[in-house]
Amino acid sequence: MNTKKMMAQEKVKPFLLQARYGIEKESQRVTLNGDLVQTDHPTLVGNRNFHPYIQTDFSETQLELITPVAESVNEVLAYLEAIHDVAQRSMPKDEMMWPLSMPPILPEKEEAIQIAKLERHADVLYRRYLAREYGKRKQMVSGIHFNFEYGLDLVRQLFLTQTEEASMEDFKTRLYMKIARNFLRYRWLLTYLFGASPLSEDRYFDSEDRPKEPVRSIRTSHYGYVNKPDVQVSYETLTRYSEDLAENVAQGRLSEEKEFYAPIRMRGGKKVADLFHTGIRYVELRNIDLNPFDRVGIDADEIEFIHLFMLYLLWTDEKLPADEWVAEGNRISDEVSLEHPAKPTAHLAEGQRIFTEMQLMADELELDGADLLKKYQVWLDRPEETLAARVLALDEAEGQDVAATKLGRKFYDQAWARPYQLAGFQEMELSTQNLLFDAIQKGIEAEVLDRQDQFVKLQHGDHQELVKNGNMTSKDTYIAPLLMANKTVTKLVLARAGFRVPDGETFSSIEAAKKAYPRFAQKAFVIKPKSTNYGLGITIFKGETSMTDFNAGLAIAFAEDDEVIIEEFLPGTEYRFFVIDHQVKAVLLRTPANVIGDGERTIEELVAEKNADPLRGLNHRSPLEKIQLGDLEQLMLKEQGLRIDSVPEKDQQVFLRENSNVSTGGDSIDVTDDIHESYKQLAIDAVEVLGASISGIDLIIPDKDKPYEVHEDYGIIEANFNPMMHMHIYPYIGKSRRLTLDVLRFLYPEMNI
Amino acid sequence: MNTKKMMAQEKVKPFLLQARYGIEKESQRVTLNGDLVQTDHPTLVGNRNFHPYIQTDFSETQLELITPVAESVNEVLAYLEAIHDVAQRSMPKDEMMWPLSMPPILPEKEEAIQIAKLERHADVLYRRYLAREYGKRKQMVSGIHFNFEYGLDLVRQLFLTQTEEASMEDFKTRLYMKIARNFLRYRWLLTYLFGASPLSEDRYFDSEDRPKEPVRSIRTSHYGYVNKPDVQVSYETLTRYSEDLAENVAQGRLSEEKEFYAPIRMRGGKKVADLFHTGIRYVELRNIDLNPFDRVGIDADEIEFIHLFMLYLLWTDEKLPADEWVAEGNRISDEVSLEHPAKPTAHLAEGQRIFTEMQLMADELELDGADLLKKYQVWLDRPEETLAARVLALDEAEGQDVAATKLGRKFYDQAWARPYQLAGFQEMELSTQNLLFDAIQKGIEAEVLDRQDQFVKLQHGDHQELVKNGNMTSKDTYIAPLLMANKTVTKLVLARAGFRVPDGETFSSIEAAKKAYPRFAQKAFVIKPKSTNYGLGITIFKGETSMTDFNAGLAIAFAEDDEVIIEEFLPGTEYRFFVIDHQVKAVLLRTPANVIGDGERTIEELVAEKNADPLRGLNHRSPLEKIQLGDLEQLMLKEQGLRIDSVPEKDQQVFLRENSNVSTGGDSIDVTDDIHESYKQLAIDAVEVLGASISGIDLIIPDKDKPYEVHEDYGIIEANFNPMMHMHIYPYIGKSRRLTLDVLRFLYPEMNI
Repeated sequence: MNTKKMMAQEKVKPFLLQARYGIEKESQRVTLNGDLVQTDHPTLVGNRNFHPYIQTDFSETQLELITPVAESVNEVLAYLEAIHDVAQRSMPKDEMMWPLSMPPILPEKEEAIQIAKLERHADVLYRRYLAREYGKRKQMVSGIHFNFEYGLDLVRQLFLTQTEEASMEDFKTRLYMKIARNFLRYRWLLTYLFGASPLSEDRYFDSEDRPKEPVRSIRTSHYGYVNKPDVQVSYETLTRYSEDLAENVAQGRLSEEKEFYAPIRMRGGKKVADLFHTGIRYVELRNIDLNPFDRVGIDADEIEFIHLFMLYLLWTDEKLPADEWVAEGNRISDEVSLEHPAKPTAHLAEGQRIFTEMQLMADELELDGADLLKKYQVWLDRPEETLAARVLALDEAEGQDVAATKLGRKFYDQAWARPYQLAGFQEMELSTQNLLFDAIQKGIEAEVLDRQDQFVKLQHGDHQELVKNGNMTSKDTYIAPLLMANKTVTKLVLARAGFRVPDGETFSSIEAAKKAYPRFAQKAFVIKPKSTNYGLGITIFKGETSMTDFNAGLAIAFAEDDEVIIEEFLPGTEYRFFVIDHQVKAVLLRTPANVIGDGERTIEELVAEKNADPLRGLNHRSPLEKIQLGDLEQLMLKEQGLRIDSVPEKDQQVFLRENSNVSTGGDSIDVTDDIHESYKQLAIDAVEVLGASISGIDLIIPDKDKPYEVHEDYGIIEANFNPMMHMHIYPYIGKSRRLTLDVLRFLYPEMNI
Repeated sequence: MNTKKMMAQEKVKPFLLQARYGIEKESQRVTLNGDLVQTDHPTLVGNRNFHPYIQTDFSETQLELITPVAESVNEVLAYLEAIHDVAQRSMPKDEMMWPLSMPPILPEKEEAIQIAKLERHADVLYRRYLAREYGKRKQMVSGIHFNFEYGLDLVRQLFLTQTEEASMEDFKTRLYMKIARNFLRYRWLLTYLFGASPLSEDRYFDSEDRPKEPVRSIRTSHYGYVNKPDVQVSYETLTRYSEDLAENVAQGRLSEEKEFYAPIRMRGGKKVADLFHTGIRYVELRNIDLNPFDRVGIDADEIEFIHLFMLYLLWTDEKLPADEWVAEGNRISDEVSLEHPAKPTAHLAEGQRIFTEMQLMADELELDGADLLKKYQVWLDRPEETLAARVLALDEAEGQDVAATKLGRKFYDQAWARPYQLAGFQEMELSTQNLLFDAIQKGIEAEVLDRQDQFVKLQHGDHQELVKNGNMTSKDTYIAPLLMANKTVTKLVLARAGFRVPDGETFSSIEAAKKAYPRFAQKAFVIKPKSTNYGLGITIFKGETSMTDFNAGLAIAFAEDDEVIIEEFLPGTEYRFFVIDHQVKAVLLRTPANVIGDGERTIEELVAEKNADPLRGLNHRSPLEKIQLGDLEQLMLKEQGLRIDSVPEKDQQVFLRENSNVSTGGDSIDVTDDIHESYKQLAIDAVEVLGASISGIDLIIPDKDKPYEVHEDYGIIEANFNPMMHMHIYPYIGKSRRLTLDVLRFLYPEMNI
């Protein structure tokens, strides 16, 4: 099969860069001082029996982070970033991830290395076997497993260019077997560039059989975690590969197939034998060390380069016989792994040839990538730029251990800097970021179907749910949010069910408004223009209003706007009740933007200090908004006889806004535990009357400590569909209420989250 | 109790015009020639066991139309209009309603008058008793029963002005007892003004004991359907009233309470005895003849006048003793009823006094109504303006029978002129009008909560449902319509489930769009600006497109708009499938605005003729839109070498639009029965995958007769939430599909509609 010719066909070229990626990344958990932890797998993380994203590898301390399959580099990295954030923030606050492939200093006694405490006995038995066979220390090494699949359209188009293979399955197998052989032959180049395990810490090796000098990659070399030399497998055909594997197992050299630690694995079925039916679907590259300079252990350029490299392996010819070709690769790989990181490789000429050919391929196939190829080609001549050399340089400066601890700490700080955000999805709404965080933490498969539209698909087993904007779900009916969106009908429905709502209406003519007089004459109420600036046009009536005064109030309001609202005025404090599934999960008090004086600093300075809180940001990218000092705020100050350079007295609270919206700098104060239960029951009952499952319902309560008894003890202002959740999750004062988790509990009761 | 003083208090005055109304209206069903029908109660109308709106009175031919309680004159009339429309359009096409209180010519044999065929045996037995007791002919008379209740706030405020009655119930009873007595005393005025039964037709009277001359109201007089003279009841107190009634029943003069045909009934409980607990809640006025000049038998002015009259009855003093006061009223009422309609009443002076006092009351209490009072006061001096006189005038001109048939026919034509509309609710969306029609027809209580927002509450027994825009219901989840609103995610979800959707995407930069080349290179597709005028910027590619051509197409499109759509082009015809509850209830083909030539008329003339169809209107007030002859249409003609004054050949179809939207004059063609079932199953399956219950899903089908076999046999263009229903209900060509009824069936499966 002439793959060069096949790939160059016009029908094939458009699809050449189509691919799917998946990444598994291992990391040892360490203390903030870089010591291996003694703790169990984080309890906040969902059960490892099914967890798709966060698992443990050999030891209880070794996290394995697994991305879903992604169709672009951005996507796979977004997931890896996100899973990283979740893993880090689900660990105890004094733990972090070790950034190196080589483990930190290991315990003196091997028994102190805990085998992963998995539920399935077979999993534990297998790890005990490995501990006996290879020793626990060897198992403590970490790396990246990179899963790569050529795009389906690409494979289909390639298939159509040839006639040698009649079935797509056989064709794919043939394709990927070639790639496997070429990968084994040329993989040394990845080790040269991305190898990053030059040194081991104390007690990794338990004998003197170890590198005496720094190397490019202990992990990739024969000193790493590899099979014993008597395990030999041919890659000539899938049949021979499968037979050889079976023979190794039959002879007891391997306990089972998965003990075969090849640098590349052919994937597609549960077992190798399945591949004969399915064809090889993708390959797993296992020789990539953690890049300790990147928070997630691998960066976009590395992935893009590996992608081009995978195309090159398909494009370039292989030499026969296959076994010799592979054996030569294995030999060179071990040689390069054990070269000194700061020195040129002995295989520089072949490296240069590979890069030249890759560029030739890129030109012929009209692929972008010249810059990327140039970047890494330079490293051939400058070994000091390779990852291994950079790690070595750190070691020489301050010791690998200290440097790795610093790097880990930097990534730890990054993960905790804005704990309300989720890396990889930061441009989405906070509520959706929090929901995704919780889903990933608990092991619910989460896929973003539309970032801009905040559309998320969740899946656990066969149970699929769609969620939009964090809490718009299948648990609510179509009509309930429509009802809540119509404030007039909402009040009508609540009033008929016996709840107290402020009587009120919007009028577009003074004649119509005048007729409403009887409804308001005996009550306290307010007449206001629908859109009001600086409070112009507003009249408040305390009750027992004459028709003359009423009409005068209307005239004042209609002078400001074409539409005028008359609304009964309920005295008291407004609270937001977050109701979900017949339970009040949070109650929040919102206060207008304000500062509290210290007798020394100006209002402007106090605002600046309050705004420095990382919880405060702009444009709803943070749980709280920064306080502005615009016209409205200055006018508000002026009305109090203050200016921005006034110095309030100690403990004097100065308000900068009339409205209490969090979105205009207001404070959010959790009062869930302080509010009398009877009001919570009212909120639950009202939401039930509206037929809603999730609602943020606003109650006016004159005295939250006094139990509800009579109609006048409360009033319902409005009920909101898709209520904000992040202000409850990250209140300015008070306890956090993790409402996104409540949404997941509601959607997946069977999971007992 | 000084009600004049009580009503004049400032606290009371704002509430004086608060009231609640309910109307029951009887009508005999007749043929279009005015003959009493022989048919049963209309089968389209829901079961009379529970029907809240459409019942039968004594005979099977006598409809009784019942409005719900309404808080304004407009509202009660809207319901009466609507129920009228429903009743008329639920009857066989050759039946209409007789507009007079007096029945049409009755059958020779009394047996031919059918007693209402009710299911409950007790109801039939009671009617048989009445037939024996009074004769069937007497029972055939029709009228208005007008239910009137003072506003609750009004009663409450009045209650607070006095101390004589300690309980609200007793107070209400006292209030309404006064009104009853005054009503009985002064009711003759309503008969004078609104009496409208001057003459009987043949065979109404079966003896010579009948008026010899035309009168104001046979129905209200002692010749009408009244109790025998020995049935006497005192209105002095509720206790005496109740005791007298009981005595009459005990003595066998009445079979039961309800046989007491008083011109006013005190209401509030099932039986009179209940009133002692509940207080009288409202009164039922029973002496109002059908106004044959109004389609629904009563008009707004009449109601407004009765309302003022009811306030007057409360305001004005009564004379003692009560029984004499009432007896005097009964005597005058009978006298006035039997006066000649064209002559002044003998009680003119009292009439003038009532009007003068009513005006005085209106002035003192600051009530509007001067114009209305003037209008009817004039009638005192001009008896020829009274309804009875006007009926008599018709009789003298052409015979009452002929005139009544003409009037009935006029109202019949009005009801059928725009059968897609529902009187009283015509400013609402057509779908909601149709839904309300069906609900009223089937006997589901329907209340419009918000006209502008198309918010309707339905109720049957305890089962309540809210519906917005005709098909937004509790049967769909919150998330399904949100999913359908996002076209990209919809296609993603459908594609993943194995359905064929056109690949397509919107791009906001040419760089991003260029990367999509591989996805489209092998397909037929179109590149177009997101907003396109006159087709500028559109390029269609038939498949196997080079990258150069692709990029050129992008450049052309991006020259027209900042956003460009690339979409796979699926050949075939687009059909709209309306899916509800896993069933396809309608399939529609939409064709662009067009005319078909006759070889004689110009395009302009052909358009005018097509637009004359009453189904075509403007701004979605009709099932089809009028074809425009604007710039777009003229440009489209020009491209075909035509102008609006061109004369197309016979049978030549000329299109005036490219798009097939009904909203731009397109035709709707029902093809539900013509489309292969396999496509219906596809539509059902796709809607299920979207998790939706109600959807209008658009499929492209190259050959609707060929069963679906392979992927290429169809494509799904989009799925619509809240799909238009009226275009299926009133298609241009083909069978009507009553989808609003399907919505009701879905919401109320227990009703077996």
